[in-house]
Amino acid sequence: MSNTISSQNDGSWLYSSDLSLSLEKGGELPGIELVYETWGELNTGKSNAIVIHHALSVGAHVAQSEKNPDKGWWNEMVGPGKAVDTDHYFVICINNLGSCFGSTGPTSINPQTNKPYNASFPEITIGDMVNSQKRLIEELGIESLYAIIGNSMGAMLSLIWAIEYPESVKRLMLSCSSYKAYPANIANRNIQQSAIRLDPAWNEGDYESNEKLDGFKLARKLGLYTYRNSAEWNRRFNSHEDKTAEDGEITRYMDYNAEKFAKIFDANSYLAITTAMDSYDVTQSYASNDEAFSRIQADVVVISEQFDILFTPQQQEEMFMALKEANVSCHFISHHSQFGHDAFLVETNRFGNYIREFLADAHFAEIRQIKPC
Amino acid sequence: MSNTISSQNDGSWLYSSDLSLSLEKGGELPGIELVYETWGELNTGKSNAIVIHHALSVGAHVAQSEKNPDKGWWNEMVGPGKAVDTDHYFVICINNLGSCFGSTGPTSINPQTNKPYNASFPEITIGDMVNSQKRLIEELGIESLYAIIGNSMGAMLSLIWAIEYPESVKRLMLSCSSYKAYPANIANRNIQQSAIRLDPAWNEGDYESNEKLDGFKLARKLGLYTYRNSAEWNRRFNSHEDKTAEDGEITRYMDYNAEKFAKIFDANSYLAITTAMDSYDVTQSYASNDEAFSRIQADVVVISEQFDILFTPQQQEEMFMALKEANVSCHFISHHSQFGHDAFLVETNRFGNYIREFLADAHFAEIRQIKPC
Repeated sequence: MSNTISSQNDGSWLYSSDLSLSLEKGGELPGIELVYETWGELNTGKSNAIVIHHALSVGAHVAQSEKNPDKGWWNEMVGPGKAVDTDHYFVICINNLGSCFGSTGPTSINPQTNKPYNASFPEITIGDMVNSQKRLIEELGIESLYAIIGNSMGAMLSLIWAIEYPESVKRLMLSCSSYKAYPANIANRNIQQSAIRLDPAWNEGDYESNEKLDGFKLARKLGLYTYRNSAEWNRRFNSHEDKTAEDGEITRYMDYNAEKFAKIFDANSYLAITTAMDSYDVTQSYASNDEAFSRIQADVVVISEQFDILFTPQQQEEMFMALKEANVSCHFISHHSQFGHDAFLVETNRFGNYIREFLADAHFAEIRQIKPC
Repeated sequence: MSNTISSQNDGSWLYSSDLSLSLEKGGELPGIELVYETWGELNTGKSNAIVIHHALSVGAHVAQSEKNPDKGWWNEMVGPGKAVDTDHYFVICINNLGSCFGSTGPTSINPQTNKPYNASFPEITIGDMVNSQKRLIEELGIESLYAIIGNSMGAMLSLIWAIEYPESVKRLMLSCSSYKAYPANIANRNIQQSAIRLDPAWNEGDYESNEKLDGFKLARKLGLYTYRNSAEWNRRFNSHEDKTAEDGEITRYMDYNAEKFAKIFDANSYLAITTAMDSYDVTQSYASNDEAFSRIQADVVVISEQFDILFTPQQQEEMFMALKEANVSCHFISHHSQFGHDAFLVETNRFGNYIREFLADAHFAEIRQIKPC
């Protein structure tokens, strides 16, 4: 058995382990690779590490670095002097298992066949993603994380982590997520998955070119449709209330985004990860919600976006109430904006303020607690 | 030139006119057929007629009748002693142009080719639908309608009617609709249209069997997803907050509904009508919103459903404000329920109460006016 960590040209790290990973739905992966990036320095006590769990469609490149000057998906949030201040914290983001940005997933070579797994990649869960990451964090010698910050699907990993490995995390920030898969979200993902599978070019997962998958592009459009709320679509296409979008303008916008996404994201990965989201429920192996949530030792903040039509405020409120009932130290922020689900990506100033306060040693509870309505 | 009206076996009427209908986007239909149903009796003064404008996916069969005992799509609402009381009113519902329930549409025979139009059916608008219906109402000798009631897409016809033929309608009830196509709705419909067209079985509109169109079924699923809000999905699939839907239960529910819809609704009709919705804007041929809305002579009620994610409360409020600014006698009802867009179909008791008051001679304004927030 061997675990290795090697640096890559783009500044990321590759963790390779030939220890198999047992999967919650059965079977195992014979070994795993995880790509991750770090910012800042781990202190000698190894007490300043923060894990950021990324959302469905991005990877480990949260912010630019010396070796990789490309802007990251949360570039405004992470860096020296920024909300997640890399002069103080050692920040780690690991590309999720099942994804297509370097970690083991459907595009990886199956050692038994020497071909990519494609659609034969075994069914994975959010819990499997967490277990693989915990192994890496232990390899780095970090016993306790100063904080975990999770956004959207990323927060599903964060919450499982805090329940399954309660002693290893002190602060937990859960943005625009949920504690289980809700029916409307399962329905939405089902439509996207069907769109991918119905496309003959998908070819049971053995497609010639990801970029030619019209069904996958359609799935992405539906995703896009839900990431922003109605008011944000108005802002983008109606400069004032009397103006209607030009003919075809909206279609072109969606086409452009779908094409761009199909260039970088793999359709089989999309299926693997969205299927993992469908079976997500942090309470499923416990006798009650209370039994699950009361395991948490971290101080928790739940952020709800008022007009999020994907992970609705109701989902945040139910998560908050379940945490409160289990006597977890938990705080609630109701974020109001026009950006819906994507607010955490767009309104980085305001989210940055939440994070600064959350990470400060001052008692976050006293200054920030806002009850859900 | 001849116009004929003939009774059909199912109790509906067929209006045939060989007068061509000029289309707003150019071209014409050489003649039109409209299927309609009526309930109650037209009084001698022809002053008790109510037109109901139906939504996208249904037809003229609003309620059961002696000749057609099948339940209609608003069966609880229309009949003797019901909210739309057919002991007092003469109720007419006309299947919209472009639809597939008997009126001229893509499934009709193109007289120039003696084959169905299919995808070659000319582009029609909501205004064209209204113009065709106005011709029929005139044929019936009705100069002024006691009321028009429109739901969802149907209310688009209702509003155009009241603007273009202001002297012909006294009361206007607009439920869960809008005065123009909004970007988020165009985006949503674009995804549905793409799903239909990407399916090779669609075959540029010349498909062998509508029921085998997986892309069309996918489109319907997306429609279904938006008709109910997240809370309603929970109610349907989570009997209590700790229960998660059984594996596959949600998928089976959507499959069942999509299959059922593909049996009755034609994919080319769906494309024609949703494209008409995309270009909808009652103000487009006027210099200002005011110029358009100030033409209205009817007393108007706008009903908004709090959790409608399709025709959002914002859309209702903007319509209401535009009407108010144009000094139209206009009232606003904010309906609160968990059913989202479909509330008008589900909560017929509460909507029935709105309609009773709206149709009564008492001043609706004084008893019912609720300002939008």
